[in-house]
Amino acid sequence: MDGVRIGLVGFGTVGRSFYRLVMGQREGFARKLGARIEIPYVSVRDASRPRPVESDTRVVSGWREILDDPSIPIVVELVGGAEAPLPLVREALARGKHVITANKAMLSAHGKELFALADAHGVELKFEAAVCGGIPIIKVLRESLLGNRITSIVGIVNGTTNYILTRMAEEHLSFAEALTQAQRKGFAEADPTLDINGGDAAQKIGLLASLAFGCWVLPADILCEGITTVEAKDIDFCLASGFVIKLVAQARTVGGAPLVTVYPALVPLDHPLAGVRNEFNAVLVEADYLGPSVYEGRGAGGNPTASSVASDLGDLVKSILSHQVPRPFGTPLATACSSPVDGMESKYYFHFVTANRPGIWALVTSVCAETGINIESVHQKWEDKSKPSDLYVLVDEANEAQVHRAFGRITGAEGIFPESHFFRVLESPAGGER
Amino acid sequence: MDGVRIGLVGFGTVGRSFYRLVMGQREGFARKLGARIEIPYVSVRDASRPRPVESDTRVVSGWREILDDPSIPIVVELVGGAEAPLPLVREALARGKHVITANKAMLSAHGKELFALADAHGVELKFEAAVCGGIPIIKVLRESLLGNRITSIVGIVNGTTNYILTRMAEEHLSFAEALTQAQRKGFAEADPTLDINGGDAAQKIGLLASLAFGCWVLPADILCEGITTVEAKDIDFCLASGFVIKLVAQARTVGGAPLVTVYPALVPLDHPLAGVRNEFNAVLVEADYLGPSVYEGRGAGGNPTASSVASDLGDLVKSILSHQVPRPFGTPLATACSSPVDGMESKYYFHFVTANRPGIWALVTSVCAETGINIESVHQKWEDKSKPSDLYVLVDEANEAQVHRAFGRITGAEGIFPESHFFRVLESPAGGER
Repeated sequence: MDGVRIGLVGFGTVGRSFYRLVMGQREGFARKLGARIEIPYVSVRDASRPRPVESDTRVVSGWREILDDPSIPIVVELVGGAEAPLPLVREALARGKHVITANKAMLSAHGKELFALADAHGVELKFEAAVCGGIPIIKVLRESLLGNRITSIVGIVNGTTNYILTRMAEEHLSFAEALTQAQRKGFAEADPTLDINGGDAAQKIGLLASLAFGCWVLPADILCEGITTVEAKDIDFCLASGFVIKLVAQARTVGGAPLVTVYPALVPLDHPLAGVRNEFNAVLVEADYLGPSVYEGRGAGGNPTASSVASDLGDLVKSILSHQVPRPFGTPLATACSSPVDGMESKYYFHFVTANRPGIWALVTSVCAETGINIESVHQKWEDKSKPSDLYVLVDEANEAQVHRAFGRITGAEGIFPESHFFRVLESPAGGER
Repeated sequence: MDGVRIGLVGFGTVGRSFYRLVMGQREGFARKLGARIEIPYVSVRDASRPRPVESDTRVVSGWREILDDPSIPIVVELVGGAEAPLPLVREALARGKHVITANKAMLSAHGKELFALADAHGVELKFEAAVCGGIPIIKVLRESLLGNRITSIVGIVNGTTNYILTRMAEEHLSFAEALTQAQRKGFAEADPTLDINGGDAAQKIGLLASLAFGCWVLPADILCEGITTVEAKDIDFCLASGFVIKLVAQARTVGGAPLVTVYPALVPLDHPLAGVRNEFNAVLVEADYLGPSVYEGRGAGGNPTASSVASDLGDLVKSILSHQVPRPFGTPLATACSSPVDGMESKYYFHFVTANRPGIWALVTSVCAETGINIESVHQKWEDKSKPSDLYVLVDEANEAQVHRAFGRITGAEGIFPESHFFRVLESPAGGER
């Protein structure tokens, strides 16, 4: 039986899970792929510390030995970080080795260069694990939906923020309390910035948009808002109105150009994404022939991510054994001219924090009237008349430009406090009666 | 650019959708696959009728010409029926042509032979469209979950019955009324037998079980119960108790042996399958590394099914262009010794139709006590004292043998009518807090 040898770089949570998976599944791989999978090298920063590896695996410092070994056709990069593994990946591809990565930050920042490099050297850069951990969304978009035109992708693609928002909703926690719980349970990092500001979700949806629309979406073109403005009060009011608040990542085309966004949104309770709880991720894809389809699973963690790395490994092993010519990423990816965010339309939810006195309703309703925004409902709530009160406004379809104009005028008026904010409302899927 | 020529056999709903998809996506395929896809032949029963095909497609009767043309490496079989296309598929495989089929009935009855035939002749028999229409569940199980041990599959895999049960629940229709509506909307055939008796679902879950567990599950070993016993009353009572009734197909291993079942089950409202409505299908897979994951979409219909046929086509075109050696179905599939159904455990729901007189509760509760069944709740309902009443009993975990014993003793007693029936309760997924 043929053997296929892998160089594994990075032995953190995902690296260890992947190593354990391969060692535990040697027989399964042999049966399913017709090949023995070997991991002769594991590269770590400090090779002097003992590591739980088998006797035929050597722990090495750095990745020089792996790249210099011509018997290694596949490098698995599980180091993480947008910049640190870049020299490794560049050189591996340039030397004709396939690379598997779980690194969305690197792909988001340098994907265009790296995929072109892989194409130029006749190798593949695989990245199923880079988006939504264990959910096979990359394979679905590239292979299963091959015959479809994809019209829209809507996803919950960040487990940390979904965990925080779920705990806030179900245990009536504040944002800070839910974040602490997420960190204690390992669902949020010590520095959660990139998760809670939407940056991680933006990297993922940018990659999905590139695949779906066949053009490269620049990070700077993605409208990205985080969840730090979401209050327990918002969650309670919205739930009573039939919505849960989720960090929603979307990619669609408007007038032929991609529009990619990440923001907290009101998700109708009967929407397929409304029931996606805690650290789970899910992606709803709308396509012309298939219609709507949903893919849900664990979006992070060592084992789910290792599952996706193993899927990429299986594909590469099959193509290596059959001397298959690699399939390019989507030849050639032009950088997209994104559709302007200003034209984006949806229903909106405003939460104004206001002085508790007459005149506020008149202000809000007249500005809405003047900017052409149609109000659906207004509710005012307060606990203590001497303190600011909360005014919740749900409005019908409007566009971003209108809403920014109205919001700016209202929050610029006297008696409206700066904690005021607005969120958008997610539409129900177009696929009809699900 | 290379061209790949396909022979299409069958031009019904799915065949026409697939033809339209390929013609409309010629440029997309050329860009993504690096090949021109051509359909020089469409085979129909009566070639004299005019068909909506392009000028470079010839409509032919029968499939002789297609098999005799050495320039055709792929035959797409969209005829349907367990027996009718069998000679075509056998001969195509034996003559070294790849076959794509959407035909679960044929694969369920003859899959073992046909996959062996494909292996023997170095070609592939692809069948993404045969299970759950447009949902890419075959690719997910074979490729995305390659590194996982699959422990359980639970699915709503028949759109007709899901449509009927959803309409019964949401519009308080009787089974007969909902069936008529399904037929009117094209979600049920004129003869719906194979759908409503669970046979279609059994074929599908049998194929999924074979893939997941690497052994061939015989149709006769699948416990199969249909939905004709489900009454509007059952649906109403269960909903008030926190359940929806769905036709649930399951495959799991018990003591190392596969256990494959299809029956109407009470699905807890917070279960990921509970919200799958109307003609939609969904499959929940539990795997050791990935944990739980869910795949949802349209399980039938021309366009979704064509989407899956196109996915298989893409895979074959890639392997043909790269002269890839086909990957066998899962070498070699032994027929499984199924786990005995008697040992199957779950919670149960009994609906006894009884004479409206004292003594019934004592009968039911004492038989349960004697057979070791722990009761969770009993409710009796009637509209008219002179008519039979309904006794709804929810019980804790028990096994099939126990339940059949108790049910047999109770329904054999005086005052219990033969319309009495029981359903099983689906467990929540093991994956922890979703």
